[in-house]
Amino acid sequence: MVKTMNEIIYENRNLYKQWLIDFCSIPSVAAQNRGMEESRVFLQHLFDTYINEKVEFIETSGYPVVYSHIEADSPYTISFYNHYDVQPEDPIELWHSPPFEATERDGKIYARGIADNKGNLIARLAAVHAMKQQNPNLPINVKFIFEGEEEIGSINLAEFAENHADKIQSDGNVWEFGYRDVDGRLQVSLGVKGMLYVELSAEGANTDLHSANATIIESPAWRLLFALTSLKDQNDRILIPGFYDDVIDPTSEEIESLNRYLFDEEANKEQLGIARFVNDLTGLSLKKKHLFEPTCNICGINSGYTGEGSKTVLPNHAFAKLDFRLVPGQDPNRILKQLREHLDNQGFHDIKIKEMSGAYAARTHPNEAIVEAVIETVTASEEMAPNIVPNTPGTGPMYDLCQRYGIPSVSFGVGHYASNNHAPNENIREQDFYKHIEQVADLIVRFEQKLASKGVE
Amino acid sequence: MVKTMNEIIYENRNLYKQWLIDFCSIPSVAAQNRGMEESRVFLQHLFDTYINEKVEFIETSGYPVVYSHIEADSPYTISFYNHYDVQPEDPIELWHSPPFEATERDGKIYARGIADNKGNLIARLAAVHAMKQQNPNLPINVKFIFEGEEEIGSINLAEFAENHADKIQSDGNVWEFGYRDVDGRLQVSLGVKGMLYVELSAEGANTDLHSANATIIESPAWRLLFALTSLKDQNDRILIPGFYDDVIDPTSEEIESLNRYLFDEEANKEQLGIARFVNDLTGLSLKKKHLFEPTCNICGINSGYTGEGSKTVLPNHAFAKLDFRLVPGQDPNRILKQLREHLDNQGFHDIKIKEMSGAYAARTHPNEAIVEAVIETVTASEEMAPNIVPNTPGTGPMYDLCQRYGIPSVSFGVGHYASNNHAPNENIREQDFYKHIEQVADLIVRFEQKLASKGVE
Repeated sequence: MVKTMNEIIYENRNLYKQWLIDFCSIPSVAAQNRGMEESRVFLQHLFDTYINEKVEFIETSGYPVVYSHIEADSPYTISFYNHYDVQPEDPIELWHSPPFEATERDGKIYARGIADNKGNLIARLAAVHAMKQQNPNLPINVKFIFEGEEEIGSINLAEFAENHADKIQSDGNVWEFGYRDVDGRLQVSLGVKGMLYVELSAEGANTDLHSANATIIESPAWRLLFALTSLKDQNDRILIPGFYDDVIDPTSEEIESLNRYLFDEEANKEQLGIARFVNDLTGLSLKKKHLFEPTCNICGINSGYTGEGSKTVLPNHAFAKLDFRLVPGQDPNRILKQLREHLDNQGFHDIKIKEMSGAYAARTHPNEAIVEAVIETVTASEEMAPNIVPNTPGTGPMYDLCQRYGIPSVSFGVGHYASNNHAPNENIREQDFYKHIEQVADLIVRFEQKLASKGVE
Repeated sequence: MVKTMNEIIYENRNLYKQWLIDFCSIPSVAAQNRGMEESRVFLQHLFDTYINEKVEFIETSGYPVVYSHIEADSPYTISFYNHYDVQPEDPIELWHSPPFEATERDGKIYARGIADNKGNLIARLAAVHAMKQQNPNLPINVKFIFEGEEEIGSINLAEFAENHADKIQSDGNVWEFGYRDVDGRLQVSLGVKGMLYVELSAEGANTDLHSANATIIESPAWRLLFALTSLKDQNDRILIPGFYDDVIDPTSEEIESLNRYLFDEEANKEQLGIARFVNDLTGLSLKKKHLFEPTCNICGINSGYTGEGSKTVLPNHAFAKLDFRLVPGQDPNRILKQLREHLDNQGFHDIKIKEMSGAYAARTHPNEAIVEAVIETVTASEEMAPNIVPNTPGTGPMYDLCQRYGIPSVSFGVGHYASNNHAPNENIREQDFYKHIEQVADLIVRFEQKLASKGVE
């Protein structure tokens, strides 16, 4: 008797979990050039030993793209975009277990990068592994594109895509991330925001000084603070002239979709320990600001003495790391130029701007075949209907890898509302990992059938 | 033939230098509770082995005060106030030699605390040691008061003085610090500023979050920045209502004294690598702001990710360390209350204030005997006339230890304009150290003669 797909996945669950645990033990922090080659070697090992398919390591100006095209006797192709780099683990003292030792507690597995993005990457490889146990020939071409620089702004991915347009081409893409909401519904997300990441800095005297000199020697910390607080008002309205000029307002269809999208305000507030959302927003206004509006966020700021107790010093250097999340229409290069002009016009010629990364926003239409196939898969396998997110507040290089080449992209995955991405105690639920393996295997079958029935050529 | 005082000091110069080097090898950072007991033991060793006088370690709620009363057959007393704690050494990477290994280069000795305040402390002990080699009986009672908490705001010194009013009593006090100006003139300083040191902090969600959430989750970093920039304007005018109300304006005599005080603007700018002073001030306005006006300075600020590269995070905590230098009339407790009221009135109820320390300003009149004696000593032993600083921009517990008890206090010492107090590569010139030993020995003689000639009782 032939085993079902889910039976095969169940029999291999310990193997797939071990892949995940091993992968999470590698501190692949691209920002700090740690564990990157080790990750490449690990992925080669998975392809060579288990998937039994050829894998390429395509050079870029930074870390290589891990690429595999598993050929099928089909005119159709599905592609998966994931990344093997992770965020830095600090503040390390807030982790309850070592960030690079996957640790199981209460049905969850904790490790840096397990939700973002190693859990999804491994689950998708596992789905293909399981399918090949049933039938060595997949129903559709499958392409894996794993980059190593997502957490540092995918700085070389656009060039990679330009140079390898044939390799990235597909009929539909499954994007890297995916989460369950606070009520347990699996979210299916369409589109991502863009990004401009900059570091602003100010310099003072040629050395730190005794703070008695603050009477007459300019303080770079104060200069930076005045420059920063000129960027937005206390109601979160960004004050850089022209910042909102190119924003494409959401269509009425998108607003309807936003109305259907479920966001449990009370559960979210309780989960995060907060009393209110920004500007006391609720309902549609809250969802609209979250999914369709840009941000100007301080990721980090530092100057002077920040250790124990007190030190009376006039620091000679101050810097802040800012990310602007952008929406369709906004060009990160233009925003960078507007930022410089604004600072100059406000008299902050002395504030230096270092561009760290930029990305355009992207948005996927809900009637694309890949979206419909994902929704069918999720509807068939979950107790609750999928929660469709008409745009995600996060960022990724979806424009550079997909939208620019006419490839629709959709997101779903192993994470949940409290996965703590980019934060201490990142985690996934173990069950969600196995469920995503099953759903990806099912999606690959459904997507082929949908394209064939639609007569796509 | 009887040796002169300076000959005795010259013969003992290597001994005194060794005391200094050994003392500087102890990382007595009170803020971090390092090396404090070791310092106490070292000072006991100097008193027992070399000075041959009894020393007391007077308990406080914090680190003990090191106290010695060297009795003389005289109705008069001179006291010396110094401290055996030092500032933290960070940023350590900017030091050219280890901060706690005194290192000689180009006639200077580099070490954390060597200018502030171990060089002065050792030079003054050395002066008494040398005098006793010539005559075991000093011409005047000498009291040493060395506290261990000056760099953390002298938090227990006021209580110590109240409890030991008899021990601190003297006819004149020599304060802990002293510097040569950029042209090499020895500064004689009268008075110090007060201080209010606070830490402001803001809290967000119960964990750091992915920065995509900055759309709807309040940022403690932005909250703190808006609160801070409400405290003063870009022209350095402090905006806390009532802040300037109690300021006692300098007298016309003090302004005249300020006119005589020499401040080499070009040399200072060149030394610090700056193009201008705050508000482009020059001349009397510059000197007045430096010596007679209060400040609001950021000693340190921190939030979120401040490591290499980029991390897209919405931090859940932000804090800043601020020091306000206060002038006569200003009460640190009242300023603290005004700060809280101001933040509340601006809607910043959520910003927490932690008081770290407070101190009143103090000012000494130039016609006090101790001031005249110091000026005569310096005039007799230096090529250039002393540069009299009518008030120092720095802070110290001069009010709590002296002014409150009617004891006039004056400052001069081993430092110079580029001693880098509270900053990397703190240093003194070796020659200045020996010169201060000679001058203190001379001052002790002159002060007794001056009091006797004035018929002080």
